[in-house]
Amino acid sequence: MPTAALIGLDWGTSVARAYRIAADGTVIDTRSADCGLQKLGARSFAQAFTDLVGDWGREPLPRIAAGMIGSRNGWIEVPYVDAPATLAALAGGLGRTPGGELAIVPGVMVRDGEGTPDVIRGEETEVFGALDDPGADALLVMPGTHSKWVSARGGRIVDFATWMTGEIYAVMLQHSILGRLAESAGSHRDVAFMRGVDSGLRDGAIAHDLFAARTLVLGGDLTPHDVTDFLSGLLIGREVRDGQQWARAHGDSLGNVHVVGADALSDRYSRALTRAGITSRRAPAAAARGLFRIARAASLIP
Amino acid sequence: MPTAALIGLDWGTSVARAYRIAADGTVIDTRSADCGLQKLGARSFAQAFTDLVGDWGREPLPRIAAGMIGSRNGWIEVPYVDAPATLAALAGGLGRTPGGELAIVPGVMVRDGEGTPDVIRGEETEVFGALDDPGADALLVMPGTHSKWVSARGGRIVDFATWMTGEIYAVMLQHSILGRLAESAGSHRDVAFMRGVDSGLRDGAIAHDLFAARTLVLGGDLTPHDVTDFLSGLLIGREVRDGQQWARAHGDSLGNVHVVGADALSDRYSRALTRAGITSRRAPAAAARGLFRIARAASLIP
Repeated sequence: MPTAALIGLDWGTSVARAYRIAADGTVIDTRSADCGLQKLGARSFAQAFTDLVGDWGREPLPRIAAGMIGSRNGWIEVPYVDAPATLAALAGGLGRTPGGELAIVPGVMVRDGEGTPDVIRGEETEVFGALDDPGADALLVMPGTHSKWVSARGGRIVDFATWMTGEIYAVMLQHSILGRLAESAGSHRDVAFMRGVDSGLRDGAIAHDLFAARTLVLGGDLTPHDVTDFLSGLLIGREVRDGQQWARAHGDSLGNVHVVGADALSDRYSRALTRAGITSRRAPAAAARGLFRIARAASLIP
Repeated sequence: MPTAALIGLDWGTSVARAYRIAADGTVIDTRSADCGLQKLGARSFAQAFTDLVGDWGREPLPRIAAGMIGSRNGWIEVPYVDAPATLAALAGGLGRTPGGELAIVPGVMVRDGEGTPDVIRGEETEVFGALDDPGADALLVMPGTHSKWVSARGGRIVDFATWMTGEIYAVMLQHSILGRLAESAGSHRDVAFMRGVDSGLRDGAIAHDLFAARTLVLGGDLTPHDVTDFLSGLLIGREVRDGQQWARAHGDSLGNVHVVGADALSDRYSRALTRAGITSRRAPAAAARGLFRIARAASLIP
């Protein structure tokens, strides 16, 4: 077994994942625990950290973390660095916990043409991990509760935008009239999903189009079992449509699109992108590689 | 006091309102109770009806109701009539409760160019009540949980569209990350509201733009007290923008726009319409007058 050179953490609102990483970047071992920011209860961050790394903590290794642990509600608040952001800028913006337990990667902030800010925290690390060549020009689609589209060029995160797709899906299904009508299908309903995608890819107003999840059932065009997959398709399709326009407006070619993640949700995004005529490839979630590269840029490891 | 000629009910999901109406359409008396479809508990519709009308029930008057009481989860399901729908079509589509207690007004269904249905149930009655001349050409904006834009021409409801603006606002504020950041302002914050309206009136993707309610606070551009009014403005502004496009695509002139309702929400819509350069007038909520006109068209009253 190779010798460990770094402990890296991806510490979010729900889950924290810890990686024991070798000097060549190989992940030797992984641990995770439900000790995200909203799951800590009465435990301190220091205690949760000690519990998570366990016996790894006995090794005198540099430790680095990314994610919401560096937010206002985290262990310490690490200020955002401004886009365009390089690996060196992230390394230069590392924060340190008071007891020296961890270096924490800053998030990135960008402002659009109207001056409205957008932010990522955690995804910046995944971006630099996801690309085999971190200097490549690429558009990264990162599905999730708050989905992020990130434009990377020449080793810089130049721009990005957030879509609240996953959260809108969840709250509308759990708390709106649309959910009261839905019945669990027990399995993925592809026809309903693609019908939603096609609707999402058209011009439209989402506050209006969402209502179709109800009226199509009233009209007999969908069954209650179809509602969740139709809604998922509609929201993902609309994100792909709007994200495509956003990318084009920023001069991204859509020639090198990566969907970051290996789960069923990423699969849905890939299919919606294909339907929109956009070829994409899958990039596995790569927080560990990103943490490794930032640690090296910060000279935490040789 | 004039003699009553009709008892009319506006019976929705939360509240039921009963009107005692004279032969000339004047409302003599009004009652309301929290006996909407979702508030009935163990009571039957017949019992709730008897409780609501009370001593009015002793008079041998025709009775007519509109609203969700005629939906699938209502007392009886009254099938939708298709748009374009006239007063005569609504009168011809009246349903009757098994015990003869009530005539119930049908809702209206329309299908867009893609075949997707949209529905109103209750608003059709308000449309025919809101216009002084029910044969006028007008665009009616009806704010609410599910806001409706209705195009009326020559005595027909020719088309309409639903925006889930109110429900999206409520569920995002109560259940999403946007609400966790908001603090009660205690009063209307007009600058934040109009900032939201201006953002909503621009081109944009709502799943992205909603996130600004968070990032503008993170960036110090809004305070937590501003969040609710900013969100309200953003969603109403976007509805006005999209509704305007919808109306133009259907050949509506936007020269005779009525905002139906007299509450603070309608006031917000009027202001957003003004900001978009659309002159509108206010029409009071007019279910009683609509019920009266439908009852007359059905010859329930002379």
